[in-house]
Amino acid sequence: MFASSQVKAVEWLDNKLVLLDQRRLPLAEEYLECASVEDVFEAIRSMVVRGAPAIGISAAYGVVLGARTCDQLAKGCFENIYAQVSYLRSARPTAVNLMWALDEMLKLLSLQEKNGFCLDSLLSKAQQIHQEDISNNYKMGLMASEVFSQYETAPFTVMTHCNAGSLATGGYGTALGVIRSAWKNGLISAVFADETRPWLQGARLTAWELEKDGIPVILNVDCAASWVMKNKGVKWIIVGADRIAANGDVVNKIGTYSLAIQAKFHGVKVMVVAPSSTVDMKSNDGNGIEIEMRALEEITKVAGNQIAHPDIDAVNPVFDVTPANLVDYIVTEKGVIALPNTEKMSALFLV
Amino acid sequence: MFASSQVKAVEWLDNKLVLLDQRRLPLAEEYLECASVEDVFEAIRSMVVRGAPAIGISAAYGVVLGARTCDQLAKGCFENIYAQVSYLRSARPTAVNLMWALDEMLKLLSLQEKNGFCLDSLLSKAQQIHQEDISNNYKMGLMASEVFSQYETAPFTVMTHCNAGSLATGGYGTALGVIRSAWKNGLISAVFADETRPWLQGARLTAWELEKDGIPVILNVDCAASWVMKNKGVKWIIVGADRIAANGDVVNKIGTYSLAIQAKFHGVKVMVVAPSSTVDMKSNDGNGIEIEMRALEEITKVAGNQIAHPDIDAVNPVFDVTPANLVDYIVTEKGVIALPNTEKMSALFLV
Repeated sequence: MFASSQVKAVEWLDNKLVLLDQRRLPLAEEYLECASVEDVFEAIRSMVVRGAPAIGISAAYGVVLGARTCDQLAKGCFENIYAQVSYLRSARPTAVNLMWALDEMLKLLSLQEKNGFCLDSLLSKAQQIHQEDISNNYKMGLMASEVFSQYETAPFTVMTHCNAGSLATGGYGTALGVIRSAWKNGLISAVFADETRPWLQGARLTAWELEKDGIPVILNVDCAASWVMKNKGVKWIIVGADRIAANGDVVNKIGTYSLAIQAKFHGVKVMVVAPSSTVDMKSNDGNGIEIEMRALEEITKVAGNQIAHPDIDAVNPVFDVTPANLVDYIVTEKGVIALPNTEKMSALFLV
Repeated sequence: MFASSQVKAVEWLDNKLVLLDQRRLPLAEEYLECASVEDVFEAIRSMVVRGAPAIGISAAYGVVLGARTCDQLAKGCFENIYAQVSYLRSARPTAVNLMWALDEMLKLLSLQEKNGFCLDSLLSKAQQIHQEDISNNYKMGLMASEVFSQYETAPFTVMTHCNAGSLATGGYGTALGVIRSAWKNGLISAVFADETRPWLQGARLTAWELEKDGIPVILNVDCAASWVMKNKGVKWIIVGADRIAANGDVVNKIGTYSLAIQAKFHGVKVMVVAPSSTVDMKSNDGNGIEIEMRALEEITKVAGNQIAHPDIDAVNPVFDVTPANLVDYIVTEKGVIALPNTEKMSALFLV
């Protein structure tokens, strides 16, 4: 039913950043070209590109686009670029990968400020961030399959929330990368995808991505999760993360916290899959992390159509905090942590 | 912002059943006239009218409309009416109030088969079912306020799921009747309304109903329920029911089970409000009760607009079973049960 193909949500082509417009999926596959730092800022803010790793990669390319316009011989060239980095940083507050990728670019820029500006090497750095993200995803896929093989008689069914797939990363995916690897290894029989209101990343993106790969996927409304867990033999919840605190608290798409509570109740295990750039060892726990609140229209309208009365009040937090004690595994490219806590997190990430 | 008015979702007017078309709310207030038993069947099946008590009341009026076409002097008159009753019974499988209301009409019909057909008395019976539903709702509102006053320092915030309001009943509402009474008594400060996918009864109906009454209502996506419970001081989940089994298991809108698990986790109490006609003492527990599965398009489309790829597989159970041990109170017009079990249910309903 779908042409099987490798989805490229983020691509550097002809000296521009080309983004698959995720607001239009799955009904249209349209690509948007970003030729300036402003284009990239707007694409991140308006969710043309979303998913913590994909946002970070896009921002890194955004720095290249911004730096290109600076006259390297002029006074204030680096100040201008640093201002652009700060501007990109403000596009979305919660995903720490955005901050991490911009910090990586800043490190190189500060070297260049001493040793001389080099646009090519900035581009190489952005491309390296992109490529490493993809290879980390493959690595995490292998590590997760080893975890699964300790537990279940395969194949089993799993559930995912939001989209932590090719579309959310440089490619292959974090949670969906794990699901892809486990599927190839014969461990998974089917994937239940929460539709993930309000933005419907599950219905629009995850279902589309998995279907393209021929992995059996069944869509459910978010509030049917407990019915599905109880009646469909779900063994694992597999999700990505937007930020992981030093104690293992996980900030991820709104609904992850609800889902982890339901998983605990049903004896379903929770696996969080994210590159180490998602880990924020400066936040002791999830409580102090800023949760982005977005426009109420994301709830009162669906696909541009008004569903609730336009004057209705609403609350639209787009992330929540899943406490570490509801998480069974955190899988990163640096290693796997079972039953995360500050001690285990520090041992892996403060080295 | 809204004209305050008493919503009449179900009304007998000029010898017809007039239903507020709930599929069009809140963007349009349109009324649909049912002049035949087929009209009523179709209105129930297609969810012009929904909510267990409102379905039961509509079906009772449907029997009147059907009986009117029967030639009372002809042979087979009663057989025809009985066939119409069976037909109405099949419109939706889960709500037991539909079965109860039709059984009430059957009792009268079987008397009339012996003593003579009387259309007026059939109509009176349907109107009595309607009026008693409303007065039961007021009664339950009072009883619930007494329960609340044992617990919390008022005012507190509550959360509801789906729509168990005027629109779902003969008038006033079950869960929303309780909320209306508690609001009048100064016990409640605000109501969080789960939007209730897939049919969005919370966004479309509950928010609209409460706003009309001037009760502060805040809409949230279903999967934000735990975020709201944790961050907004919710003390009670108040919901209706489509069927309550003999042990206190509650069949209600999909998501109620998920919500009750999350409530337990947060120390939030769960109150189920339903007339005794919702109680099905013939079902020992919730496991054997048929859960209606509806079309996948209810998930893959929203308000007629495709959101997921049309070929995506989905699962759409529209009710779930909340086990009795997750329910703190069942409130009926016959009395209140705390921590329901078979013994307490039998004592109240098998008398």
